[in-house]
Amino acid sequence: MASQTPKRVLVVAGLGNGSGTGASTARLFAKNGYSVALIARGADSVNKLAQEINGSGGHAEPFPITSYSNDDVTSAWTAVHAKFPKPEYVVRVAVFNAGFGVWKKFLDITPQEIEESLQTNVVSAFAFARGAILAFKDNDIEQPNGKKGALIFTGATASTRGNVVTSAFAAGKFGIRALSQSLSKEFGKENIHVAHSIIDGVILVDRQREKRDTEWQENEDVRLRPESIANSYLYLVNQDRSAWTWELDLRPAHEKW
Amino acid sequence: MASQTPKRVLVVAGLGNGSGTGASTARLFAKNGYSVALIARGADSVNKLAQEINGSGGHAEPFPITSYSNDDVTSAWTAVHAKFPKPEYVVRVAVFNAGFGVWKKFLDITPQEIEESLQTNVVSAFAFARGAILAFKDNDIEQPNGKKGALIFTGATASTRGNVVTSAFAAGKFGIRALSQSLSKEFGKENIHVAHSIIDGVILVDRQREKRDTEWQENEDVRLRPESIANSYLYLVNQDRSAWTWELDLRPAHEKW
Amino acid sequence: MASQTPKRVLVVAGLGNGSGTGASTARLFAKNGYSVALIARGADSVNKLAQEINGSGGHAEPFPITSYSNDDVTSAWTAVHAKFPKPEYVVRVAVFNAGFGVWKKFLDITPQEIEESLQTNVVSAFAFARGAILAFKDNDIEQPNGKKGALIFTGATASTRGNVVTSAFAAGKFGIRALSQSLSKEFGKENIHVAHSIIDGVILVDRQREKRDTEWQENEDVRLRPESIANSYLYLVNQDRSAWTWELDLRPAHEKW
Amino acid sequence: MASQTPKRVLVVAGLGNGSGTGASTARLFAKNGYSVALIARGADSVNKLAQEINGSGGHAEPFPITSYSNDDVTSAWTAVHAKFPKPEYVVRVAVFNAGFGVWKKFLDITPQEIEESLQTNVVSAFAFARGAILAFKDNDIEQPNGKKGALIFTGATASTRGNVVTSAFAAGKFGIRALSQSLSKEFGKENIHVAHSIIDGVILVDRQREKRDTEWQENEDVRLRPESIANSYLYLVNQDRSAWTWELDLRPAHEKW
Repeated sequence: MASQTPKRVLVVAGLGNGSGTGASTARLFAKNGYSVALIARGADSVNKLAQEINGSGGHAEPFPITSYSNDDVTSAWTAVHAKFPKPEYVVRVAVFNAGFGVWKKFLDITPQEIEESLQTNVVSAFAFARGAILAFKDNDIEQPNGKKGALIFTGATASTRGNVVTSAFAAGKFGIRALSQSLSKEFGKENIHVAHSIIDGVILVDRQREKRDTEWQENEDVRLRPESIANSYLYLVNQDRSAWTWELDLRPAHEKW
Repeated sequence: MASQTPKRVLVVAGLGNGSGTGASTARLFAKNGYSVALIARGADSVNKLAQEINGSGGHAEPFPITSYSNDDVTSAWTAVHAKFPKPEYVVRVAVFNAGFGVWKKFLDITPQEIEESLQTNVVSAFAFARGAILAFKDNDIEQPNGKKGALIFTGATASTRGNVVTSAFAAGKFGIRALSQSLSKEFGKENIHVAHSIIDGVILVDRQREKRDTEWQENEDVRLRPESIANSYLYLVNQDRSAWTWELDLRPAHEKW
Repeated sequence: MASQTPKRVLVVAGLGNGSGTGASTARLFAKNGYSVALIARGADSVNKLAQEINGSGGHAEPFPITSYSNDDVTSAWTAVHAKFPKPEYVVRVAVFNAGFGVWKKFLDITPQEIEESLQTNVVSAFAFARGAILAFKDNDIEQPNGKKGALIFTGATASTRGNVVTSAFAAGKFGIRALSQSLSKEFGKENIHVAHSIIDGVILVDRQREKRDTEWQENEDVRLRPESIANSYLYLVNQDRSAWTWELDLRPAHEKW
Repeated sequence: MASQTPKRVLVVAGLGNGSGTGASTARLFAKNGYSVALIARGADSVNKLAQEINGSGGHAEPFPITSYSNDDVTSAWTAVHAKFPKPEYVVRVAVFNAGFGVWKKFLDITPQEIEESLQTNVVSAFAFARGAILAFKDNDIEQPNGKKGALIFTGATASTRGNVVTSAFAAGKFGIRALSQSLSKEFGKENIHVAHSIIDGVILVDRQREKRDTEWQENEDVRLRPESIANSYLYLVNQDRSAWTWELDLRPAHEKW
């Protein structure tokens, strides 16, 4: 069986309750033949999403973590490699979608929230990126896209603009953007593609569904479908080495910006 | 025949000698079922590319112009509509790829070169955009992407960074970027998608082939394939209304940036 | 007389009706010992400002022009040198404050307005910059600031952001910004300081006074004083060579941005 | 004595060994009549600088801290208020100059260094900013500059650009920039001025003196004088409410950028 083509693996971190970008990315890549490693807090949600994907003919494994600390994220990567060993599997794509948002006036933000924002946004992004780069470095260069692997970070409006109630969130999101740009410059030379998306609008997730009316939910001009974001990630992964993207913005047609 | 689906039309301006981004875009969209309107200076090149596309089972029409003045570009749009009348045809995509680059020390740039840069880069972009927006405004919203039309501008490193020998070129490219952002904000609300690419590297066109060695030409890690840029344009056109992109950068894997 | 210190000259282009940034800059530099060359359209305003400055103990000369074409701006520079000859005078500072703003929906902008925006904003900026750089290149390096000269461009919100009604204005202002960045990089090495301000708010000029109420006029938190902008230009000129600024933004305390 | 004008206080955090931006800022403001509160690690350096300023006719008090944790920085602010009580004193200026730079390939950076970068750059900036904003909020609006207070953050090239060896440093510096922009937007409305400098070059500090030759040290065209940076901070503090700056870059004349 040594000559068999290894199965490609997507590792995704950050899944919310399974209704957002991370989960849609997992589903889309599973449909496109990837095995999927699911890293997130909340074992119930992670397990449920894995079951859903496995029940739909895909292949997913849950890797619940208790926090986005460096140790927990690093352990998750070790577990991923144990579950998806070479040469049967090859990790080709890693998507960092975790995050902690806090929208508060500056003086109302607690030191704990600042720590949490830096941990869940930045420390975890560094740990996740380290796992991804280490996984990719030993890969062969895949054809036709000419890559060892692709690492994508999910950003937000707050990735490039600090605003009145976003100081802690923006500090975290700016930090991820800095990391992604540094990595893109350092590892492009090794055919590792690092990209960063700027989600500049509200995503149609369950939390928003509960807060907003049906008209908003049904109007694709005003909110982002997680499936559309996932499509853009698949596109980024498939871009070939001669013309790839570090950063793209994504927003609904009618967004005011 | 009234009920027949109209044929989609791509209008592309700026084709060089047929070896670059504009021509690759024309070929790719022709293969994907679009009729193609080719606007550019140099009747010979334009006609040759039209013949090539028509000879490969596509459908292209040449619209050579003598300059990128407002009048000539506007006349070209009139001619495009005459050749691709409604309801048989519907203009869905417009790509502005024209440009005039001058790389010189500031004091060596002539007033004529400054004028030429502003004419060919900016005035022409405004005239081309006007034609595109007017064409799109009457369109129905197409499904599944939810758009009346898509207008893409080709940018460059000089779109966001002025450099030692690029004052005149960057002034033009910054101008196009300003236009594209304004249009994106104004016409997104009408389901017209306006995008801007930043080509941050050297494209493998004939002119570069002549100047560089075979190793460079064959190394896809160091230069952009026009076909890959065209792929990204097709992707932008197909993005749906819930998550579309204004700006993306494109560069080769090993580019230093 | 050979040992006498030459008198420093400020050349400023763009004066409106004498109530804005250009005029305030002229007055401030005159008070600080500069002779002032006033380049602008509208001979009456230019002459009036010159008289005012001369009547207040300063020294100003009017150089009215009929347009911001390359030829007219270049001729104005020739006239400036004739009136302020070496070695009695040395041109040390040049401020480009001209501009043409048009705030209209894209489809309402005429080709003439686009041309006018590019002429008055960009072509004129190139011509003015050429005059300034040529004037500075032969200067000695002044102490203590370590410069041959300083060239400042006045920008606006539209210098970095295209918006719904600003496509033509932003195309011009982005163009000036590109030019200023290129020049800064090219001529910093020759100890010529090129800077760009981003005026991100409404300036208290006569035109605004007429449109707005007294409360707005008297509230320094909500609008920019031209005198304060002029102060920042004097500061930029006095920055020394070891730490000088290319770009700074200026806005009122209560501005929403 | 109730009618006596309170003495203005500058609080500065981050002093290195006393040869850089923080120390120069302290000296300059002391010369301009401010009492100075010195917060930094390394009690010896802090005490030495306080003695130096006090010995030159100024007034400085040392507030050494053992770490840039939220608790230590917050305690330092409490100590500052105890030493400089109202109504004799009023805290008008706060400069955050602390930082932790690490220049390493991504895979060589340890989790400890990432934590340290986020702590010393970002957590400390939040804690310091909190102290400053709380101190300013109760102030009257000073004339002529129209401010309750001014808070300045020292940034770097890595504040806006991630690069090959700067992932951890840039993540921290981007974070500070996000914070400063958020604060500027939130507290401008309360006449609190928040600014951010981008030091885009090498500063002539003792550490650089040891590494570089005399020619470099003596050539003001190629490195930043800390005194010049301090001058720009004093300028920012003195900008009036009608036209103040959030961000300015500072670099030597001959810097390649």
